[in-house]
Amino acid sequence: MPKIVDHEARRTELADAVGRVIARDGVNEVSIRSVAAEAGWSPGALRHYFTTRAELLAFACEQVIQRVTDRITELRHTGTIQQAVRDTLLETMPVDARRHTEATVAFAFLALGLSDPRLAEVQRTHFNGMYGLCLQLIESLDTEGLLTPRGPSAEILARRLHAVVDGLSIQRLAGHLTPESMITQLDAYLGEIIHGTDATR
Amino acid sequence: MPKIVDHEARRTELADAVGRVIARDGVNEVSIRSVAAEAGWSPGALRHYFTTRAELLAFACEQVIQRVTDRITELRHTGTIQQAVRDTLLETMPVDARRHTEATVAFAFLALGLSDPRLAEVQRTHFNGMYGLCLQLIESLDTEGLLTPRGPSAEILARRLHAVVDGLSIQRLAGHLTPESMITQLDAYLGEIIHGTDATR
Repeated sequence: MPKIVDHEARRTELADAVGRVIARDGVNEVSIRSVAAEAGWSPGALRHYFTTRAELLAFACEQVIQRVTDRITELRHTGTIQQAVRDTLLETMPVDARRHTEATVAFAFLALGLSDPRLAEVQRTHFNGMYGLCLQLIESLDTEGLLTPRGPSAEILARRLHAVVDGLSIQRLAGHLTPESMITQLDAYLGEIIHGTDATR
Repeated sequence: MPKIVDHEARRTELADAVGRVIARDGVNEVSIRSVAAEAGWSPGALRHYFTTRAELLAFACEQVIQRVTDRITELRHTGTIQQAVRDTLLETMPVDARRHTEATVAFAFLALGLSDPRLAEVQRTHFNGMYGLCLQLIESLDTEGLLTPRGPSAEILARRLHAVVDGLSIQRLAGHLTPESMITQLDAYLGEIIHGTDATR
Protein backbone atom coordinates (compact mmCIF):
# COMPACT_ATOMS: atom_id res chain seq x y z
CA MET A 1 0.00 0.00 0.00
CA PRO A 2 2.48 2.66 -1.16
CA LYS A 3 -0.06 5.48 -0.95
CA ILE A 4 -0.68 5.00 2.78
CA VAL A 5 3.04 4.77 3.55
CA ASP A 6 3.62 7.99 1.64
CA HIS A 7 0.77 9.66 3.50
CA GLU A 8 2.27 8.73 6.88
CA ALA A 9 5.75 9.80 5.76
CA ARG A 10 4.46 13.20 4.74
CA ARG A 11 2.62 13.64 8.04
CA THR A 12 5.83 12.77 9.88
CA GLU A 13 7.74 15.26 7.72
CA LEU A 14 5.25 17.95 8.81
CA ALA A 15 5.53 16.93 12.47
CA ASP A 16 9.31 17.39 12.18
CA ALA A 17 8.72 20.87 10.76
CA VAL A 18 6.50 21.66 13.78
CA GLY A 19 9.42 20.63 16.03
CA ARG A 20 11.84 22.92 14.18
CA VAL A 21 9.46 25.92 14.36
CA ILE A 22 9.00 25.34 18.11
CA ALA A 23 12.74 24.93 18.74
CA ARG A 24 13.56 28.14 16.86
CA ASP A 25 10.59 30.47 17.43
CA GLY A 26 8.52 29.00 20.27
CA VAL A 27 5.18 27.20 20.27
CA ASN A 28 3.31 30.47 19.93
CA GLU A 29 4.62 30.76 16.37
CA VAL A 30 3.24 27.40 15.24
CA SER A 31 0.59 27.95 12.57
CA ILE A 32 -0.55 26.26 9.35
CA ARG A 33 1.32 29.03 7.52
CA SER A 34 4.63 28.91 9.45
CA VAL A 35 4.84 25.11 9.41
CA ALA A 36 4.04 24.98 5.68
CA ALA A 37 6.83 27.52 5.04
CA GLU A 38 9.26 25.54 7.22
CA ALA A 39 8.47 22.31 5.34
CA GLY A 40 8.62 24.05 1.96
CA TRP A 41 4.94 23.34 1.32
CA SER A 42 2.05 25.61 0.42
CA PRO A 43 -0.51 26.18 3.22
CA GLY A 44 -3.12 24.58 0.93
CA ALA A 45 -1.05 21.40 0.54
CA LEU A 46 -0.54 21.20 4.32
CA ARG A 47 -4.30 21.54 4.88
CA HIS A 48 -4.71 18.33 2.90
CA TYR A 49 -3.12 16.60 5.92
CA PHE A 50 -4.10 18.86 8.84
CA THR A 51 -7.01 21.27 8.75
CA THR A 52 -6.28 23.08 12.03
CA ARG A 53 -3.30 24.17 14.12
CA ALA A 54 -4.63 22.00 16.96
CA GLU A 55 -4.57 18.87 14.76
CA LEU A 56 -1.03 19.67 13.68
CA LEU A 57 0.13 20.13 17.27
CA ALA A 58 -1.72 17.02 18.44
CA PHE A 59 0.00 14.91 15.79
CA ALA A 60 3.41 16.43 16.61
CA CYS A 61 2.86 15.54 20.28
CA GLU A 62 1.82 11.97 19.40
CA GLN A 63 5.00 11.63 17.35
CA VAL A 64 7.10 12.79 20.30
CA ILE A 65 5.43 10.27 22.61
CA GLN A 66 6.01 7.49 20.07
CA ARG A 67 9.68 8.37 19.58
CA VAL A 68 10.46 8.60 23.28
CA THR A 69 8.63 5.30 23.88
CA ASP A 70 10.60 3.64 21.06
CA ARG A 71 13.92 4.86 22.44
CA ILE A 72 13.07 3.64 25.94
CA THR A 73 12.08 0.22 24.54
CA GLU A 74 15.35 0.04 22.63
CA LEU A 75 17.57 1.03 25.59
CA ARG A 76 20.02 -1.79 26.35
CA HIS A 77 20.74 -1.84 30.05
CA THR A 78 24.16 -3.25 30.79
CA GLY A 79 24.64 -1.70 34.23
CA THR A 80 22.68 -1.74 37.48
CA ILE A 81 18.92 -1.37 37.83
CA GLN A 82 19.58 2.07 39.37
CA GLN A 83 21.36 3.14 36.18
CA ALA A 84 18.53 1.74 34.05
CA VAL A 85 15.97 3.81 36.02
CA ARG A 86 18.08 6.93 35.58
CA ASP A 87 18.69 6.36 31.84
CA THR A 88 15.00 5.74 31.25
CA LEU A 89 13.91 8.95 33.02
CA LEU A 90 16.58 11.05 31.28
CA GLU A 91 15.26 9.82 27.92
CA THR A 92 12.07 11.80 28.69
CA MET A 93 13.79 14.96 30.01
CA PRO A 94 15.27 18.02 28.20
CA VAL A 95 18.96 17.09 28.54
CA ASP A 96 20.04 17.89 24.96
CA ALA A 97 18.73 19.79 21.91
CA ARG A 98 16.60 16.93 20.59
CA ARG A 99 15.00 16.09 23.91
CA HIS A 100 14.59 19.80 24.68
CA THR A 101 12.44 20.18 21.56
CA GLU A 102 10.48 17.02 22.42
CA ALA A 103 9.79 18.23 25.94
CA THR A 104 8.76 21.67 24.62
CA VAL A 105 6.24 20.05 22.26
CA ALA A 106 4.88 17.88 25.08
CA PHE A 107 4.54 20.73 27.60
CA ALA A 108 3.04 23.08 25.03
CA PHE A 109 -0.03 20.89 25.45
CA LEU A 110 -0.49 21.98 29.02
CA ALA A 111 -1.26 25.57 28.03
CA LEU A 112 -3.11 24.61 24.85
CA GLY A 113 -4.91 21.42 25.87
CA LEU A 114 -7.08 22.97 28.55
CA SER A 115 -9.57 24.43 26.09
CA ASP A 116 -9.42 21.86 23.26
CA PRO A 117 -10.80 18.31 23.72
CA ARG A 118 -8.60 16.87 20.93
CA LEU A 119 -5.44 18.24 22.57
CA ALA A 120 -6.67 17.24 26.02
CA GLU A 121 -6.99 13.63 24.82
CA VAL A 122 -3.40 13.55 23.54
CA GLN A 123 -2.22 15.15 26.75
CA ARG A 124 -4.01 12.49 28.79
CA THR A 125 -2.21 9.79 26.78
CA HIS A 126 1.09 11.51 27.50
CA PHE A 127 0.34 11.84 31.19
CA ASN A 128 -0.85 8.27 31.65
CA GLY A 129 2.21 7.02 29.77
CA MET A 130 4.57 8.97 32.03
CA TYR A 131 2.81 7.92 35.23
CA GLY A 132 2.79 4.28 34.07
CA LEU A 133 6.49 4.50 33.33
CA CYS A 134 7.25 5.97 36.77
CA LEU A 135 5.19 3.26 38.47
CA GLN A 136 6.97 0.54 36.49
CA LEU A 137 10.40 1.95 37.48
CA ILE A 138 9.43 2.21 41.16
CA GLU A 139 8.05 -1.35 41.10
CA SER A 140 11.23 -2.70 39.51
CA LEU A 141 13.26 -1.06 42.31
CA ASP A 142 10.84 -2.52 44.85
CA THR A 143 11.16 -6.04 43.38
CA GLU A 144 14.92 -5.81 43.76
CA GLY A 145 14.54 -4.69 47.39
CA LEU A 146 16.14 -1.34 46.57
CA LEU A 147 13.52 1.03 47.99
CA THR A 148 14.20 2.62 51.37
CA PRO A 149 12.38 0.44 53.95
CA ARG A 150 9.20 1.76 55.60
CA GLY A 151 8.87 4.46 52.93
CA PRO A 152 5.66 5.49 51.17
CA SER A 153 3.67 3.17 48.88
CA ALA A 154 4.74 2.52 45.26
CA GLU A 155 1.82 4.67 44.03
CA ILE A 156 2.83 7.65 46.20
CA LEU A 157 6.47 7.29 45.13
CA ALA A 158 5.48 6.99 41.45
CA ARG A 159 3.27 10.11 41.59
CA ARG A 160 6.03 12.03 43.32
CA LEU A 161 8.69 10.84 40.88
CA HIS A 162 6.39 11.99 38.07
CA ALA A 163 5.95 15.40 39.75
CA VAL A 164 9.72 15.75 40.29
CA VAL A 165 10.47 14.82 36.65
CA ASP A 166 7.77 17.21 35.34
CA GLY A 167 8.78 20.00 37.71
CA LEU A 168 12.50 19.75 36.89
CA SER A 169 11.75 19.49 33.16
CA ILE A 170 9.64 22.65 33.04
CA GLN A 171 12.19 24.51 35.15
CA ARG A 172 14.83 23.51 32.59
CA LEU A 173 12.57 24.48 29.66
CA ALA A 174 12.02 27.90 31.21
CA GLY A 175 15.80 28.35 31.46
CA HIS A 176 15.95 28.32 35.25
CA LEU A 177 18.10 25.19 35.47
CA THR A 178 21.00 24.08 33.28
CA PRO A 179 20.78 20.50 31.94
CA GLU A 180 23.57 19.62 34.42
CA SER A 181 21.79 21.04 37.46
CA MET A 182 18.54 19.33 36.39
CA ILE A 183 20.39 15.99 36.27
CA THR A 184 22.06 16.69 39.63
CA GLN A 185 18.62 17.27 41.17
CA LEU A 186 17.27 14.04 39.68
CA ASP A 187 20.29 12.07 40.92
CA ALA A 188 19.91 13.51 44.42
CA TYR A 189 16.27 12.44 44.50
CA LEU A 190 16.95 8.93 43.16
CA GLY A 191 19.83 8.63 45.63
CA GLU A 192 17.37 9.19 48.45
CA ILE A 193 14.59 6.84 47.46
CA ILE A 194 17.02 4.08 46.48
CA HIS A 195 18.19 2.29 49.57
CA GLY A 196 21.89 2.71 50.32
CA THR A 197 23.03 3.23 46.72
CA ASP A 198 24.03 5.96 44.29
CA ALA A 199 22.00 6.02 41.06
CA THR A 200 24.88 7.53 39.09
CA ARG A 201 27.09 4.47 39.70
CA MET B 1 -2.79 62.19 41.21
CA PRO B 2 -6.25 60.89 40.28
CA LYS B 3 -5.26 60.27 36.67
CA ILE B 4 -2.53 57.77 37.57
CA VAL B 5 -4.76 55.94 40.06
CA ASP B 6 -7.44 55.65 37.39
CA HIS B 7 -4.89 54.38 34.89
CA GLU B 8 -3.74 51.61 37.25
CA ALA B 9 -7.33 50.70 38.14
CA ARG B 10 -8.19 50.32 34.47
CA ARG B 11 -5.13 48.16 33.83
CA THR B 12 -6.14 45.96 36.76
CA GLU B 13 -9.68 45.74 35.38
CA LEU B 14 -8.21 44.48 32.10
CA ALA B 15 -5.96 41.97 33.88
CA ASP B 16 -9.08 40.61 35.61
CA ALA B 17 -10.73 40.24 32.19
CA VAL B 18 -7.67 38.26 31.01
CA GLY B 19 -8.17 35.92 33.98
CA ARG B 20 -11.85 35.40 33.13
CA VAL B 21 -11.08 34.64 29.45
CA ILE B 22 -8.40 32.11 30.49
CA ALA B 23 -10.66 30.46 33.08
CA ARG B 24 -13.51 30.08 30.58
CA ASP B 25 -11.85 29.58 27.18
CA GLY B 26 -8.18 28.79 27.80
CA VAL B 27 -5.04 30.89 27.36
CA ASN B 28 -5.05 30.23 23.62
CA GLU B 29 -8.13 32.45 23.32
CA VAL B 30 -6.53 35.50 24.95
CA SER B 31 -6.28 38.31 22.40
CA ILE B 32 -6.65 42.09 22.36
CA ARG B 33 -10.08 41.51 20.80
CA SER B 34 -11.38 38.82 23.21
CA VAL B 35 -10.17 40.65 26.33
CA ALA B 36 -11.65 43.95 25.12
CA ALA B 37 -15.00 42.19 24.54
CA GLU B 38 -14.82 40.55 27.99
CA ALA B 39 -14.14 43.91 29.67
CA GLY B 40 -16.82 45.69 27.60
CA TRP B 41 -14.19 47.89 25.93
CA SER B 42 -13.38 48.53 22.29
CA PRO B 43 -10.12 46.98 21.03
CA GLY B 44 -8.89 50.52 20.29
CA ALA B 45 -9.48 51.64 23.90
CA LEU B 46 -7.66 48.56 25.20
CA ARG B 47 -4.69 49.31 22.93
CA HIS B 48 -4.32 52.61 24.78
CA TYR B 49 -3.16 50.47 27.74
CA PHE B 50 -1.61 47.41 26.09
CA THR B 51 -0.39 47.37 22.51
CA THR B 52 0.26 43.61 22.24
CA ARG B 53 -1.16 40.35 23.53
CA ALA B 54 2.23 39.65 25.16
CA GLU B 55 2.09 42.90 27.17
CA LEU B 56 -1.42 42.08 28.29
CA LEU B 57 -0.42 38.58 29.40
CA ALA B 58 2.74 39.84 31.10
CA PHE B 59 0.74 42.35 33.13
CA ALA B 60 -1.87 39.71 34.03
CA CYS B 61 0.95 37.44 35.27
CA GLU B 62 2.52 40.25 37.31
CA GLN B 63 -0.87 40.90 38.91
CA VAL B 64 -1.17 37.22 39.85
CA ILE B 65 2.29 37.23 41.43
CA GLN B 66 1.43 40.37 43.38
CA ARG B 67 -1.87 38.99 44.64
CA VAL B 68 -0.42 35.67 45.75
CA THR B 69 2.47 37.48 47.46
CA ASP B 70 0.04 39.80 49.27
CA ARG B 71 -2.08 36.88 50.48
CA ILE B 72 0.99 35.03 51.77
CA THR B 73 2.18 38.17 53.59
CA GLU B 74 -1.26 38.57 55.15
CA LEU B 75 -1.56 34.93 56.32
CA ARG B 76 -1.91 34.82 60.10
CA HIS B 77 -0.34 31.63 61.39
CA THR B 78 -1.92 30.49 64.62
CA GLY B 79 -0.90 26.83 64.45
CA THR B 80 2.39 24.98 64.11
CA ILE B 81 5.23 25.89 61.76
CA GLN B 82 4.35 22.76 59.75
CA GLN B 83 0.84 24.11 59.19
CA ALA B 84 2.24 27.50 58.22
CA VAL B 85 4.48 25.87 55.58
CA ARG B 86 1.54 23.93 54.19
CA ASP B 87 -0.83 26.95 54.15
CA THR B 88 1.79 29.07 52.41
CA LEU B 89 2.42 26.50 49.65
CA LEU B 90 -1.31 25.89 49.11
CA GLU B 91 -1.78 29.63 48.58
CA THR B 92 0.28 29.21 45.37
CA MET B 93 -1.40 26.00 44.14
CA PRO B 94 -4.64 25.40 42.15
CA VAL B 95 -6.82 24.24 45.05
CA ASP B 96 -9.94 26.28 44.21
CA ALA B 97 -11.40 28.25 41.28
CA ARG B 98 -9.53 31.49 42.04
CA ARG B 99 -6.14 29.84 42.54
CA HIS B 100 -6.78 27.56 39.55
CA THR B 101 -7.09 30.64 37.32
CA GLU B 102 -4.02 32.23 38.91
CA ALA B 103 -1.93 29.09 38.35
CA THR B 104 -3.19 28.83 34.76
CA VAL B 105 -2.07 32.41 34.07
CA ALA B 106 1.32 31.75 35.66
CA PHE B 107 1.95 28.47 33.79
CA ALA B 108 0.75 29.90 30.49
CA PHE B 109 4.06 31.77 30.60
CA LEU B 110 6.03 28.58 30.28
CA ALA B 111 4.73 27.89 26.78
CA LEU B 112 4.64 31.55 25.76
CA GLY B 113 7.71 32.96 27.52
CA LEU B 114 10.27 30.89 25.65
CA SER B 115 10.16 33.05 22.53
CA ASP B 116 9.39 36.47 24.01
CA PRO B 117 11.96 38.35 26.16
CA ARG B 118 9.28 40.47 27.91
CA LEU B 119 7.38 37.34 28.98
CA ALA B 120 10.62 35.54 29.86
CA GLU B 121 11.49 38.37 32.28
CA VAL B 122 8.14 38.11 34.07
CA GLN B 123 8.52 34.35 34.19
CA ARG B 124 11.96 34.69 35.76
CA THR B 125 10.49 36.95 38.46
CA HIS B 126 7.81 34.33 39.13
CA PHE B 127 10.35 31.50 39.27
CA ASN B 128 12.79 33.33 41.54
CA GLY B 129 9.93 34.30 43.82
CA MET B 130 8.75 30.70 44.13
CA TYR B 131 12.25 29.31 44.69
CA GLY B 132 12.95 32.01 47.29
CA LEU B 133 9.71 31.14 49.06
CA CYS B 134 10.56 27.41 49.10
CA LEU B 135 14.04 28.14 50.46
CA GLN B 136 12.58 30.37 53.19
CA LEU B 137 10.11 27.65 54.23
CA ILE B 138 12.81 24.96 54.30
CA GLU B 139 15.10 27.25 56.33
CA SER B 140 12.35 28.01 58.84
CA LEU B 141 11.84 24.25 59.32
CA ASP B 142 15.60 23.83 59.68
CA THR B 143 15.82 26.59 62.31
CA GLU B 144 13.17 24.81 64.35
CA GLY B 145 15.11 21.53 64.07
CA LEU B 146 12.21 19.95 62.16
CA LEU B 147 14.09 18.62 59.12
CA THR B 148 14.91 14.92 59.00
CA PRO B 149 18.52 14.60 60.29
CA ARG B 150 21.33 13.83 57.81
CA GLY B 151 19.07 14.74 54.88
CA PRO B 152 20.07 16.80 51.83
CA SER B 153 21.09 20.47 52.04
CA ALA B 154 18.49 23.27 52.35
CA GLU B 155 19.16 24.25 48.70
CA ILE B 156 18.54 20.73 47.39
CA LEU B 157 15.38 20.42 49.50
CA ALA B 158 14.14 23.85 48.35
CA ARG B 159 14.71 23.03 44.65
CA ARG B 160 12.95 19.70 45.08
CA LEU B 161 10.02 21.25 46.99
CA HIS B 162 9.72 23.77 44.15
CA ALA B 163 9.74 20.93 41.56
CA VAL B 164 7.14 18.95 43.55
CA VAL B 165 4.86 22.02 43.89
CA ASP B 166 5.24 22.88 40.17
CA GLY B 167 4.81 19.26 39.06
CA LEU B 168 1.70 18.68 41.18
CA SER B 169 0.23 22.03 40.12
CA ILE B 170 0.57 21.35 36.39
CA GLN B 171 -0.82 17.84 36.85
CA ARG B 172 -3.86 19.40 38.56
CA LEU B 173 -4.19 22.07 35.83
CA ALA B 174 -4.16 19.35 33.18
CA GLY B 175 -6.98 17.57 35.00
CA HIS B 176 -4.92 14.53 35.98
CA LEU B 177 -5.24 15.10 39.72
CA THR B 178 -8.22 16.31 41.75
CA PRO B 179 -7.50 19.20 44.16
CA GLU B 180 -7.83 16.66 47.00
CA SER B 181 -5.31 14.20 45.55
CA MET B 182 -2.90 17.05 44.83
CA ILE B 183 -3.10 18.12 48.49
CA THR B 184 -2.69 14.49 49.65
CA GLN B 185 0.51 14.24 47.59
CA LEU B 186 1.84 17.50 49.03
CA ASP B 187 1.04 16.38 52.58
CA ALA B 188 2.77 13.03 52.02
CA TYR B 189 5.90 14.83 50.82
CA LEU B 190 5.92 17.35 53.69
CA GLY B 191 5.31 14.49 56.11
CA GLU B 192 8.52 12.87 54.93
CA ILE B 193 10.86 15.84 54.98
CA ILE B 194 9.53 17.08 58.32
CA HIS B 195 11.04 15.05 61.12
CA GLY B 196 8.58 12.91 63.05
CA THR B 197 5.52 15.07 62.45
CA ASP B 198 2.41 15.32 60.34
CA ALA B 199 2.07 18.58 58.39
CA THR B 200 -1.72 18.41 58.40
CA ARG B 201 -1.88 18.62 62.19
